[in-house]
Amino acid sequence: MIRIGIVGYGNIGRGVEKAVRAAEDMELVAVFTRRDPAAVALESGSVPVLSVDEAEHMTDAIDVMVLCGGSATDLAEQGPYFASMFNTVDSFDTHARIPEYLAAVNACAKETTAVISTGWDPGLFSMMRALFEAVLPAGATYTFWGKGVSQGHSDAIRRVPGVAHAVQYTIPREEAIAQVRSGAMPELTTRDKHLRHCLVVAEPGADKAAITEAITSMPHYFAEYDTIVDFIEMDELLEKHSAMPHGGMVVRSGKTQDNTQSIEFSLALESNPEFTASVMVAYARAAVRMADEKLFGAKTVFDVPLSYLSPRAHEELVKDLL
Amino acid sequence: MIRIGIVGYGNIGRGVEKAVRAAEDMELVAVFTRRDPAAVALESGSVPVLSVDEAEHMTDAIDVMVLCGGSATDLAEQGPYFASMFNTVDSFDTHARIPEYLAAVNACAKETTAVISTGWDPGLFSMMRALFEAVLPAGATYTFWGKGVSQGHSDAIRRVPGVAHAVQYTIPREEAIAQVRSGAMPELTTRDKHLRHCLVVAEPGADKAAITEAITSMPHYFAEYDTIVDFIEMDELLEKHSAMPHGGMVVRSGKTQDNTQSIEFSLALESNPEFTASVMVAYARAAVRMADEKLFGAKTVFDVPLSYLSPRAHEELVKDLL
Repeated sequence: MIRIGIVGYGNIGRGVEKAVRAAEDMELVAVFTRRDPAAVALESGSVPVLSVDEAEHMTDAIDVMVLCGGSATDLAEQGPYFASMFNTVDSFDTHARIPEYLAAVNACAKETTAVISTGWDPGLFSMMRALFEAVLPAGATYTFWGKGVSQGHSDAIRRVPGVAHAVQYTIPREEAIAQVRSGAMPELTTRDKHLRHCLVVAEPGADKAAITEAITSMPHYFAEYDTIVDFIEMDELLEKHSAMPHGGMVVRSGKTQDNTQSIEFSLALESNPEFTASVMVAYARAAVRMADEKLFGAKTVFDVPLSYLSPRAHEELVKDLL
Repeated sequence: MIRIGIVGYGNIGRGVEKAVRAAEDMELVAVFTRRDPAAVALESGSVPVLSVDEAEHMTDAIDVMVLCGGSATDLAEQGPYFASMFNTVDSFDTHARIPEYLAAVNACAKETTAVISTGWDPGLFSMMRALFEAVLPAGATYTFWGKGVSQGHSDAIRRVPGVAHAVQYTIPREEAIAQVRSGAMPELTTRDKHLRHCLVVAEPGADKAAITEAITSMPHYFAEYDTIVDFIEMDELLEKHSAMPHGGMVVRSGKTQDNTQSIEFSLALESNPEFTASVMVAYARAAVRMADEKLFGAKTVFDVPLSYLSPRAHEELVKDLL
């Protein structure tokens, strides 16, 4: 049995808890939190909730730590710290900072294996971008996200004065997908590829026109997109838009000589955090196996052979799936 | 530069020739054939065509042999033989015999790296089946092939008495794909998943009813499917059905707790052999790199980290694609 620790108990941490309980080759040992452990109630209460400070005394009891904190705040510090003591897996997703994060974790993972930036993007989508380019060198790759809820964009709207609550759906444009699938290899701007649909609950008496202007002009988040802002009631938002669906696709089309070839990978997820967690748990298994073979250091999804992800024996994979 | 040899010069061999010429980090050294070398004209005539018997003298001149023979006849013998002297890659695709082939090649690949059963199925589709199952354990995986030309089925029709020429299209059933995508996890028989459409040119005076009966009752190939037989003229067959398009998809849908999650990978190929060849060439690069690291033996697509497939530096993959 692979002994699992979870660091951070938000949506992803809860997803990891469920995925580990469903895995026959894994057992959950403890959940670690920066909050008051007494205030954290697990979905299933059979393992202790401990302060992150206690983790350092448990290196013999845990085979791999699944780091479920956020990239913006927790992981920059927790990634290197835990990798110095444990095998780890995380979903560090600030794309621009991945190289420096990889280096920082690698410097600490002297006798451990730390798989960084797993999940689906970065993660499965990254794998597809690398695979597609390698097997079809003359072509162009496109990534589309959605339809789904972007937590980052939803949070950005919630910081606008006068906003009581908000959910933002990222929606890929059908016409852009059709162009890409045709093999035309179009040049597409950010605006061409996605729409942003904002569902906003205004505070009583708030200026809705001002809220709309503040959202649609927000740089990086909305200004570069066609953004639709709709105001709805709190009841409707909570009832119909509390789920966390997401998905998207990676498409590459290209040529071998004169022939057009297209490759496509897509996800349709009812629960983004549960799927992210499920991917992380597969990479947790891989981290332990690579550490057993002394393949130490920080690894990415580009470095992990697929056979390490499966609980099944290699012969069985070959016989049943090859 | 990675120095490439090609063994066998049919459709796949020609595809490999084109892919190698397009790769900046590879050069083609020679093509080996079991036929009379003088009778083999390359697409581009700048490298020698040699008898397969001469290969054993060229172990210092070639880094990896791309084995382009067929599974039924050539590879069972050529795979182990060449792996004893060279790094190799092949597209051995007789699914039921892969375990014994893997063992036979592995026994010979003492100081070489031999990646077997690459291409797209087995190959990319196998990778997706393994990956999808690992990241979404509670679910069901479905593989669909087509729309595309099946060489094996076309050949089987051509052996029927009274048939002058034939092409067989494998067509996935839209209703089966829709069921699978819905997350219903249906139980689907062979007949439920695919149609077989046969375009047949009859010899003058042949009994078309007898040909149709011989095709539709043929065990393994057609009896288990809904099979449509249409007779057409030779001119039309040659003009409209000489291309080798293919494709298909691997779909897995499953649950994380109560949420349905779906993953899909699909290919739409104008040239099946050129794409297969392009995948093989990426794995040829991987074979050389693994051999450089003394990762010897027979390998499958489950064993090769994705970073080995790309000509790009690891840092660049991390920066641009992760």
